[in-house]
Formats: sequence, structure tokens, C-alpha cells
Amino acid sequence: MRILVIGAAGMLGGKLVERLMRDGRLGGEPISELTLVDRVAAEPPGDPGFAVERTVADLAEPGVAAGIAAGRPDVIFHLAAVVSGEAEENLEKGYRVNLDATRMLLDAIRAGGQGYRPRVVYSSSIAVFGPPFPEVIGDDHGVTPATSYGTQKAMIELLLSDHARRGFVDGIAIRLPTICVRPGRPNLAASGFFSSIIREPLNGQDAVLPVSADVRHWFASPRSAIGFLLHAATIDPARLGDRRCLTMPGVSATVADEIEALRRVAGDEAVRRVHHQPDATIMRIVAGWPRSFDARRARALGFSAEADFDEIVRVYVEDELGG
Amino acid sequence: MRILVIGAAGMLGGKLVERLMRDGRLGGEPISELTLVDRVAAEPPGDPGFAVERTVADLAEPGVAAGIAAGRPDVIFHLAAVVSGEAEENLEKGYRVNLDATRMLLDAIRAGGQGYRPRVVYSSSIAVFGPPFPEVIGDDHGVTPATSYGTQKAMIELLLSDHARRGFVDGIAIRLPTICVRPGRPNLAASGFFSSIIREPLNGQDAVLPVSADVRHWFASPRSAIGFLLHAATIDPARLGDRRCLTMPGVSATVADEIEALRRVAGDEAVRRVHHQPDATIMRIVAGWPRSFDARRARALGFSAEADFDEIVRVYVEDELGG
Repeated sequence: MRILVIGAAGMLGGKLVERLMRDGRLGGEPISELTLVDRVAAEPPGDPGFAVERTVADLAEPGVAAGIAAGRPDVIFHLAAVVSGEAEENLEKGYRVNLDATRMLLDAIRAGGQGYRPRVVYSSSIAVFGPPFPEVIGDDHGVTPATSYGTQKAMIELLLSDHARRGFVDGIAIRLPTICVRPGRPNLAASGFFSSIIREPLNGQDAVLPVSADVRHWFASPRSAIGFLLHAATIDPARLGDRRCLTMPGVSATVADEIEALRRVAGDEAVRRVHHQPDATIMRIVAGWPRSFDARRARALGFSAEADFDEIVRVYVEDELGG
Repeated sequence: MRILVIGAAGMLGGKLVERLMRDGRLGGEPISELTLVDRVAAEPPGDPGFAVERTVADLAEPGVAAGIAAGRPDVIFHLAAVVSGEAEENLEKGYRVNLDATRMLLDAIRAGGQGYRPRVVYSSSIAVFGPPFPEVIGDDHGVTPATSYGTQKAMIELLLSDHARRGFVDGIAIRLPTICVRPGRPNLAASGFFSSIIREPLNGQDAVLPVSADVRHWFASPRSAIGFLLHAATIDPARLGDRRCLTMPGVSATVADEIEALRRVAGDEAVRRVHHQPDATIMRIVAGWPRSFDARRARALGFSAEADFDEIVRVYVEDELGG
């Protein structure tokens, strides 16, 4: 089985690659080749016993998508994106990377022809939903994004679904919750603080909270996200039918819930590391984000996430802080 | 007020132009200039007492959108599209015309800058909805198109909304019901038979019915459609907020309802002109279309349509057959 990961140098990409190399197989089939694509070099650890190719390329540049399709990978994980804050800041870049580049990939796969029909796992986002929201968002709720990032993800969901319906690609778009707790350094996403208010205190550092404690949002751990991606790559397409976009399960929690989970794990001292400094821009963006979902369809299809925010914190401690 | 109509040579375009020329004003303001754009020459009737410019151009060609934006029209009606059957037949053409060309228009308006922010009325379609459907589709129901045409319309709805939210355009997308009874000759739309089974018998000709009589669908007359467009062009944007896509009101009727309405207007002889010849392709496409809506939001905003299919037939007789 040939696997290709676009956005392999990102946080989720790195974890996915690590997992694939450790497992050596996907859905029961041995991996024969793993290709890593990103605009910066992805660094896969160790020797998995099969070919690992690294390609430094921008999917939005001419020829890159065609090169990818020419290798005829069986499974393509597409994780590359300009994040929400940056897509809001730079409209052209957001549309170029988040919309055009992905469309070029689908065009290249379609042009491949001769029965080439790879599984494409596309990382979409709950940012496709916008206010006004019901308290809990069901699987049939309309997509009305409140950001350019969410708009671009929603447009690709439509394009991917149409390409799947027409038989050009075996695509599945999974709407990831906000991934929390993200390890490492903050990125440009407006959602970064949801992680940093847990991560920084656990690492003995101060963190800034730019919104109020009653802000509610929808979370899953990086470990769950990798689980979603692997399950999406191996699920029987007959179970999906023509509905190729799935809201992933997660945990609905407030910032206050996060802080209390932090307190239970690391005590009052850690909580004192969190400093409330309201940021109007971030508050405005976050106000347009959903708070809770009934991800019934995904759960029925076997996708699963944490049960509560305490478990999300525990996963971070286990996976990133060596327990 | 400067008005521009893209797709002015089409059925709705022609009726819209005729109405604008007759009224000489829009939303209380006198029209100073009317520009008609289409790939074939639009033929406006008579002299309205203001400048009417005809441009034969393909919006998807380089420079055409920029030329349109350079004229800085106050209101742009965008009605041009490759219809459903053709977009299904020719994937590249559908995406080029229905997605790329409209995006070029929005890009050109954005590039115009200097506070240029025209009202853009975009003709979307109920084809943005796909099965499985609830019996009646509400305003918050998710968009899952079952055709490439519907996909392209839904993608532009998202793009238009994002451009409106960011202040580049004062856009509104109206999801037109299937327009019925269309005058004139059939076009390539898979929905053509809904009109021809009324129109042809009323004109003493035979008509083919390619689906069964229990097929239910959502209709409005051309007269209502022009009403929707004019209302969308003049509605206070503050009433829309960030939700720029509206499902238009209409009549939910079965083919049997159509036939009985025809019988009431023109008798059994007319009904005998309708010949049932099942067409698997059209049946498959139509099976993916919605049957009924609760267009609450649009009705609350003052959009209105016919009360039943008898009224739709009467409108055709009045507007096209001289009563």
C-alpha cells in the first residue's frame, strides 16, 4: 500500500507519520511506500523497513499536484492548510492554499484516469459552522462559516463530495474539533489559547487567556485526531454513501472546564499561570465558533474521542510529558 | 443608478431587462444606465430613455470581469450559468462557468477597491440541496448537492457570503425554485419537462413526461422569479446580516398536481397531449431534488410566490399567451 501525506511537517502530520511508521500497515495491509509532502522538510523518525520519500513542495505550485497523482498513492492524507487567523489576515493566500491547491490535487487525480481512484482523507474543520447556532449542532445542520478559513474548508467539502459522487476519488472529509492539547509551540490559529492555557502551566510557564471563562467549544486530543484519520482511511466506503463529510466526535467544554481539569491534574499553582488578557480580535473570531455537536453519524461509523476534558489533559500528559 | 445584468440573453435575464426598462427605476431610484452582458447578444426591446449597453462576452474569459467592475455598476444581477444537465455532462465547463467565472467577478469587484461595494444578486438554486431530505426543508438545513451544478452553486454561495462578510460586496444569493412554466423552447436543464408538460399542451403540441406522476418538486413562475430578483436588489442589507443565502418561497406540487391544473385550465384534450416516456437519466437526477421547503426567512423578508400550481398556470397564460 502506497500512502502519501500532504502537510506531513505539521503537528498532526508528524504524529500521523510516526504512527504509520510504527504500525507498518494500514487497515491490515502492509505499507510499501510512504511519501511525505510539505513546504518545509518533514522529519520522519528512524527506519520503518519500507521506502520513505520526502518531497519539499507547495501543492499550490504548478505541477506539484500532477506529480503526486503520477505516483498513484492508494491513500492520500491531505492535512495542509493556512490556519484560521492567517486566512483571515491574508485573503488571497488563504484561498490559494486552502481552496485552489486542494482543487489542483482533485483535478490531478481526475486527470490521472485509468481507474485511478485513491482514498483521499481531507482534514476539514468545525469552522465550517457559523452562528446563529442551535445549542447542539446535528449532522444535518447547515454550513454557514463565519471565517474565510471555514469558507474554504466548506468549499472543498463540496468539491470533494462531487468528485466522490462522480467516481473520480474515494474521498472523505472529516471535520476535526479544535485539537487540544496541541504540543510544542503556538501556531497562528486563533484557537491556540485553548491549548496554551493547559500546556504552558503544565510546563511551568505562564499562559494568556484572551477570552472569558464561559466560552464553550468542541475539542479532541491529537491522539483522537490520528485515530479519526486512520479510521477515515480504512472505513468501508459503502458505509458512507454520497455523504462524504462527517463531523467528528469530541468534548464540549468551557474554558472554565479546562481550567478545572488543569487544577485537578496540576493544582492551584498551575492555574495561577493563566492570565486573563482580553483580545477583541480573538474574542470576535471565537464568538463565531460552534460550542457543541451531536456527532451521531460519525460515532455510528466507529469514530470516537475522549469522554471529558480531564481525559484530554491526561492524554497530553501521557503522550507529551511521558506520563 | 447603474445596473448590470450578466446572463441578460437568458429567459430570466430577458424578462428582468424588459421589466427594468419598463419601470425605468429600481427601489425608487431612476436607472441611468443598463448594461447587458451575455455570450450571445441580448436584445432589449425599445428605447427606455436611458443608456443601454450590450456587451457580448464570456465572464470566464480573462479581463471580462475586470471590465465589468471598472464600470462600477451599483447593482449586478448575475444570472449566467451552465444548467444542470450540461454541468453533469461536461464537468470542466460547469466548473469553469458556474464557479470560476463568478469567482473572477468577485475578485474583480474586490480589486476595484476605493469603497466600491455593489449589490450583487446571485441566482442560486434549490439544487444545492440533496438527499436524504426531510419532508419539508427548513432554512437551517445542510447543503449537500447531488449534482455538479448544485455543487457549483453552493460553492459560490459560500464565496459570496465570505466576500459580503468581509465587506467587499453587498451580496445576496437567492435559491430559485424550479421556474415553471418556462416560455419558449426547452433548454438543456433536466427540469425542462416540468414546464413542457404544461406549455406544449397549451400550445396544441405533444409533450414528453420522463418521470412518474408522483414526483414532487418546488416551483415558482418566471413572474415570481423577477419579483425575487428585484426585491433582492433593493432589500435593506441590515435585514440580512451575515446570512446572505436565502431559499425562495414557492409551490410544492407533484406532476399529478401539474396535470390536474392543466386539466382545469385546458381540459382533457390538453392532458392527452402528455405522453409518459420514462427516462432513467432524468429520473435519477430528479430523484436527487428536493420536494418542499419552509422558506420562512425569505417570506419574513418580503419575498413571495404563487399560492398553488393553478396560479402558476394562470400566470403563464396571462404573461405568455395574452390571457
